Amino acid sequence: MTPRFALGLDYGTNSVRALVVDVRNGKEVGTAVWDYAHGDQGVILSRDPNLARQHPADYVTGAEVSIKKAVAQARRSIRGFSPEQIIGIGVDTTGSTPMPVDREGKPLAFQKKFRSNLAAMAWLWKDHTGVAEAEEITALARKIRPHYVARCGGVYSSEWFFSKILHCRRTTPEVFEAAYLWVEIADWIPAMLTGTEHPDRLVADVCAAGHKAMYSDDWNGYPDSEFLSQLDPALGELRTRLRSTAATSDRAVGGLTKAWAKKTGLRPGIPVAVGAFDAHLGAVGSGVGPGTLVKIIGTSTCDVTVSPGNKPPADIAGLCGIVKGSVLPGHYGFEAGQSAVGDIFNWFVNYIRPNGKAGTHESLTAEASRIKPGESGLLALDWNNGNRTILVDQRLTGLLVGQTLYTTPAEIYRALIEATAFGALTIINRFEESGVPVSEVVNCGGIAEKSPLTMQIYADVTGRPMKISRSAQTCALGAAIAGAVVAGPEAGGYANFEEAQKNMTGLKSRVYTPDPAAHAVYEQLYELYRTLHDAFGTRQWQGNLAHVMKSLLDIRNRVRK
Amino acid sequence: MTPRFALGLDYGTNSVRALVVDVRNGKEVGTAVWDYAHGDQGVILSRDPNLARQHPADYVTGAEVSIKKAVAQARRSIRGFSPEQIIGIGVDTTGSTPMPVDREGKPLAFQKKFRSNLAAMAWLWKDHTGVAEAEEITALARKIRPHYVARCGGVYSSEWFFSKILHCRRTTPEVFEAAYLWVEIADWIPAMLTGTEHPDRLVADVCAAGHKAMYSDDWNGYPDSEFLSQLDPALGELRTRLRSTAATSDRAVGGLTKAWAKKTGLRPGIPVAVGAFDAHLGAVGSGVGPGTLVKIIGTSTCDVTVSPGNKPPADIAGLCGIVKGSVLPGHYGFEAGQSAVGDIFNWFVNYIRPNGKAGTHESLTAEASRIKPGESGLLALDWNNGNRTILVDQRLTGLLVGQTLYTTPAEIYRALIEATAFGALTIINRFEESGVPVSEVVNCGGIAEKSPLTMQIYADVTGRPMKISRSAQTCALGAAIAGAVVAGPEAGGYANFEEAQKNMTGLKSRVYTPDPAAHAVYEQLYELYRTLHDAFGTRQWQGNLAHVMKSLLDIRNRVRK
Repeated sequence: MTPRFALGLDYGTNSVRALVVDVRNGKEVGTAVWDYAHGDQGVILSRDPNLARQHPADYVTGAEVSIKKAVAQARRSIRGFSPEQIIGIGVDTTGSTPMPVDREGKPLAFQKKFRSNLAAMAWLWKDHTGVAEAEEITALARKIRPHYVARCGGVYSSEWFFSKILHCRRTTPEVFEAAYLWVEIADWIPAMLTGTEHPDRLVADVCAAGHKAMYSDDWNGYPDSEFLSQLDPALGELRTRLRSTAATSDRAVGGLTKAWAKKTGLRPGIPVAVGAFDAHLGAVGSGVGPGTLVKIIGTSTCDVTVSPGNKPPADIAGLCGIVKGSVLPGHYGFEAGQSAVGDIFNWFVNYIRPNGKAGTHESLTAEASRIKPGESGLLALDWNNGNRTILVDQRLTGLLVGQTLYTTPAEIYRALIEATAFGALTIINRFEESGVPVSEVVNCGGIAEKSPLTMQIYADVTGRPMKISRSAQTCALGAAIAGAVVAGPEAGGYANFEEAQKNMTGLKSRVYTPDPAAHAVYEQLYELYRTLHDAFGTRQWQGNLAHVMKSLLDIRNRVRK
Repeated sequence: MTPRFALGLDYGTNSVRALVVDVRNGKEVGTAVWDYAHGDQGVILSRDPNLARQHPADYVTGAEVSIKKAVAQARRSIRGFSPEQIIGIGVDTTGSTPMPVDREGKPLAFQKKFRSNLAAMAWLWKDHTGVAEAEEITALARKIRPHYVARCGGVYSSEWFFSKILHCRRTTPEVFEAAYLWVEIADWIPAMLTGTEHPDRLVADVCAAGHKAMYSDDWNGYPDSEFLSQLDPALGELRTRLRSTAATSDRAVGGLTKAWAKKTGLRPGIPVAVGAFDAHLGAVGSGVGPGTLVKIIGTSTCDVTVSPGNKPPADIAGLCGIVKGSVLPGHYGFEAGQSAVGDIFNWFVNYIRPNGKAGTHESLTAEASRIKPGESGLLALDWNNGNRTILVDQRLTGLLVGQTLYTTPAEIYRALIEATAFGALTIINRFEESGVPVSEVVNCGGIAEKSPLTMQIYADVTGRPMKISRSAQTCALGAAIAGAVVAGPEAGGYANFEEAQKNMTGLKSRVYTPDPAAHAVYEQLYELYRTLHDAFGTRQWQGNLAHVMKSLLDIRNRVRK
């Protein structure tokens, strides 16, 4: 039987990756990364530190270059490989990254008059210019449509679809008026590959729509016109041009155009799946399923799990989103996350630059590995970039307590890792308290790959084994899986995501198992973490903290004995 | 008129300094420092990190070498100078630093059988071996003699006289039994110079006795035998050999012996003043008086002021000590302090070693000087070494809040300085709340001399001008003032401390005046500091801290605009 391959395209913040995967076993046979050409590492910046944009030309060039190079690598690694054997394509992107397009679905940024207008670019996920608009949307929704925000933790973020569009309307009306539609790049890129960018043909994906644009089948799709009109009549008018239904990634938006086939050497007409966000397809590539929580741990984390069935589960306070079909069709997808993990460790190494010149991640990790749980007497909160789950509050900051005159950088480094582990445990607990079981935790991403110390601390803090996804490119793998599913069994692909995952995903053999003695100490420390968490992070908490420093000293003394 | 000089001897932790001062104007004409020969920089250590001892031989050698060298320097700097012109000597030492002596008043350490017995040495102020005994003494006093500990902030410290003696009794009974008496080195060194070491002649100083041994005229001197016997009958028995009265430093313990005159070239018979602690005579050398608070700022601080009259003031919660005559005769002396100031800055530079290799005090100070109050969004507690005043709690630790992903070392360095300023303000407020006015603040010590940034922040935080003592050797100068007072007007000295201070002390011309705008921001930050202070430091506080991080961000945003 001829081997069949699927192609995953993973559009990140700074670059795009193409990955060619053997459909039979998930083996990654060719990959290539292309760094975006515009801006600072692909991100167009301005004087406003909240602004972050991308030029859509990078999406076009990126697909061509990365696909060609990945195919070339597959040719070198597999004897007899032909791009004709690629049966389907999946795409994942960052998000919410909406972009204004014209009546034909072409990016406004491609028009001469808008080519240097920042508002005509793609508004990258981490663009925070719409802070005021986000507050306005949250306030209105709480007042007249509380169910809209209950699904996304009670707060509509400045990073999301309508905040950005409303901010454009308020600050750059000429772009807003020229835009026929705003399209998530997760939708636009598959459309570009299949020639379906035209607003009448464009397919919206349920992942972006559900998690970032308050879309739900439970209330007839996107927020109603009346609600949007109260924010701005022009937004209500825009509503009429948004698709009434959004699709899951087991559906194809169309077939690869001849032009794209020619450019890349792939077969024309092979199906391209409905797009989705990187974290969600990353969870698929890590084997997410009911009871399995996938943690994508990099600069921040995205924590994804699913629950089967079509009945919407109860809203969970502090969760970023609960969306039917956003991860696996036929399941509700849950998204939670920590606003900073690797970013906190990077801050300590790159901004504090401790230990003279010797304070690298490697040396701090080596030294921190020799410190026992509780031995430093330190405790930190992991809020240097706010708290996404479960507090949904960006206006929180870091905290470190327990410093003496002898506290070392490695002790602080370990305390920061532990703080992110306590944050991770808080998310797991919230899932379980809310009736979403977590029977398995699978980790992927840079930290999961590169920091055994972090993974062991996560195991010891949570009291759960930490498994690692076999693939180091789970997002691109998840996209490839979508490609294999839309190709279908008749083309050598799969009938559904579960079948594809069974064959194409896996775990590394190394599992980090919790040490009972360490876990016992961490249970005491977590109680103190939770006290600080609630005292500084919630308005409900009432109490006194005189025991905190003394308990840390008591734990330290017991551990040192 | 022939100029007259006074000699101050300042026994520190690592060295002794001799200072020859012109009695007419306080000019320092000769000085010399001798580093102790024993132990690690003068401190004898063991495996027990709480242990810190000194060998009394260093006190003897130190006096000889430092006096001779200081005199030699005076000869070089003043034409026609003769040591015969020195009219009196004063001595200050660390404390509580008690030492066991035999029936003749000779240190047990000088006996062959005890020469390597650590318990027979001087128990240096920072020896903490008596932690358990201190708790025992505190508990008993609270139960049956609450007035004993009310004068010293409610807690009897492991650093103090009876904790050390009781610990010796419990752990090295052979030394305890061989000791006829335990003598503070502040008493023993003047006795050594005057040949009055014999227990029948020995003079106890009220500074050591009052601040560290619960001595007060209000209850017949030292704690009563019944109290001490309940701790240990042998301690009750020792009580009978302690002097019934203690003296102030305007009294001489005797005249310099011929032997010491011969060794040093000074005139035999010149008076040697009753000793006192370094901080207290340092306050004298900085011009302390009613309304003037002297802050001696080094690794830690000692904050000293006085209140006139003989009626004991009300006890002040959280103050280290209130002792009649401990600073100026005829005044109650008040001692407060911060457990770490320079030590916290040193910790950050020497243990964290931030900014690659560039994180020196100088570079961090330069960068921190460019940061506006409130601009960093950081707030710290200055408790890395516990809190002496007003919480009297060694089991407290440091805290830093407000970190983002962009927080820099200079911002943290400044936040640490600000934290010590907030601690300083808390002490000033406690004095004033308690009816002890603070109309002037005079600073001395290494930080006051070397860190204009710290002094400016103290001015801005407290809203008070920060003045700096003219002398950089205020402790030795204070001792020399005591020497000039015991010499008396007929010998060319002074009738009392006030007269001597008027002529021999002064201020530097540079005064750090508060900037109103900076003070306004610091008033907001202090409110948050006080909230954290009370929340983590007291059992009484009840509340919620959800506003802390947000207020810091609000202040930051306002300042940055």
